[in-house]
Amino acid sequence: MKTVTIIGLGLIGGSLAISLQEQGLVTHRIGVDLSAENRQQALALGLVDEASADLAAAVRRADLVVVAVPMDAMLTVLPQVLDAVDHQVVIDVGSTKSMLLAAVAGHPRRGRFVAVHPMAGTEFSGPAAAVAGLFDDKTLVICDAAQSDADAVATVEQLFTRLNMRIEYLDAAAHDLHTAYVSHISHITSFALALTVLKKEKEEQQIFALASGGFASTVRLAKSSPAMWVPIFRQNRVNVLDVLDEHIQQLQHLRQLIDADDAAALHQQIEQANLISKILK
Amino acid sequence: MKTVTIIGLGLIGGSLAISLQEQGLVTHRIGVDLSAENRQQALALGLVDEASADLAAAVRRADLVVVAVPMDAMLTVLPQVLDAVDHQVVIDVGSTKSMLLAAVAGHPRRGRFVAVHPMAGTEFSGPAAAVAGLFDDKTLVICDAAQSDADAVATVEQLFTRLNMRIEYLDAAAHDLHTAYVSHISHITSFALALTVLKKEKEEQQIFALASGGFASTVRLAKSSPAMWVPIFRQNRVNVLDVLDEHIQQLQHLRQLIDADDAAALHQQIEQANLISKILK
Repeated sequence: MKTVTIIGLGLIGGSLAISLQEQGLVTHRIGVDLSAENRQQALALGLVDEASADLAAAVRRADLVVVAVPMDAMLTVLPQVLDAVDHQVVIDVGSTKSMLLAAVAGHPRRGRFVAVHPMAGTEFSGPAAAVAGLFDDKTLVICDAAQSDADAVATVEQLFTRLNMRIEYLDAAAHDLHTAYVSHISHITSFALALTVLKKEKEEQQIFALASGGFASTVRLAKSSPAMWVPIFRQNRVNVLDVLDEHIQQLQHLRQLIDADDAAALHQQIEQANLISKILK
Repeated sequence: MKTVTIIGLGLIGGSLAISLQEQGLVTHRIGVDLSAENRQQALALGLVDEASADLAAAVRRADLVVVAVPMDAMLTVLPQVLDAVDHQVVIDVGSTKSMLLAAVAGHPRRGRFVAVHPMAGTEFSGPAAAVAGLFDDKTLVICDAAQSDADAVATVEQLFTRLNMRIEYLDAAAHDLHTAYVSHISHITSFALALTVLKKEKEEQQIFALASGGFASTVRLAKSSPAMWVPIFRQNRVNVLDVLDEHIQQLQHLRQLIDADDAAALHQQIEQANLISKILK
């Protein structure tokens, strides 16, 4: 692996640029971004060795191409990338998969593309959000691996194993279902919590002097970018609505128990919720 | 300040025992707990120098008394403590205030009691959960300070300033309103999120391989103890129901926008939620 072209110089693209360099997995990094400001910032931060706005040329010079743009742009950028590919290995790093894989299903270079989702991130975005070690000890999901050329899958497995990631294999539909549960719903609850508190704060200014670690950790994801999350919610709409309905029902049940002052049932529900600690230490 | 008696040897009582000792603010620590196991564990962990089940005797020997029991027990324990007090300074560390202050309003030793709420904690409980530095750089709320003797308030202010806490003053009603917003609602959303995912997980086992830092941080508070939280929700029922209704409405609004595939409005709502980052860095 010599040259990587990273398209989209945000949190994930930038962090991957750092990690690939640190592990000696690439010798040259080309950054592509529509935003001249992002290209300049990525260069200034040393995330890439060269910045370009010419996608096709940057793809042709690469051995590995990483497409790290929001999921709406992904649907048009990934086919453009595959149009320019012959031998290169191409990965996305996107949070939804079914629509994307349908969009490139018939592409003559489909085999060079490996659909991956590193289960890692922060609430921040843009080149300045890129951090070292973001992927360390996290899970990488590879989707529909059988649709990719065997050598391309092997390259991706080797690369992310070197970044100390655990690799899981899922089909696109299962990926989108599971990520609705463990990732997308968390973001919606956090956005809603922020909106709730901001709404109330109009009445009561002093509230924020009192915010402790618990509130901060629950509301942290509400700082996440709409440019990233709106397309995710749209592309995973059916699964997100399903888990969101369950969540609203659980909240309404807790509300009803508090309203009825039913201490025993409330205690039982919280004990049930505590079982999450058997799964997440 | 020489001897502190700490009643309730859990996360908060135990952590305060550590901090008071570390800062050289006490020379002897007596721990009182109904549970023989907690008393033994607190001794073994060095949280206290002496353990006792005789509340009144331990109070009489103290200069400072800390009552750190769940809010349901607090309503009966605090009056018992005040019954045994003459010159001592007594504090609670409870998460709700209106009911508690009503319960001791007419007590002849009311002036010796200062109602405080350190805005600090973790999702863990019991003596083993006690940690050093829990209160450092956090806020301490003092409630209805005018109802306490001036020397008792001054003692408390000095003590917690030495623990590097910022002191805020609120009346009990305002305290209960604000904590519903910044603390109690976070716990309810987190309990509901855990219940949601656990419900779905019965259908889909593999989900937890994919949990990332975002999910972990949002669901962390769901590990919190029902013995602590049920009494808080009951004692702050009206405020909790009010903010919970707002939160359910915000979730239903986001649900409606996702269902209608209204990208522009969804984007606007997330941008609105992002404003939380201006208040919480």
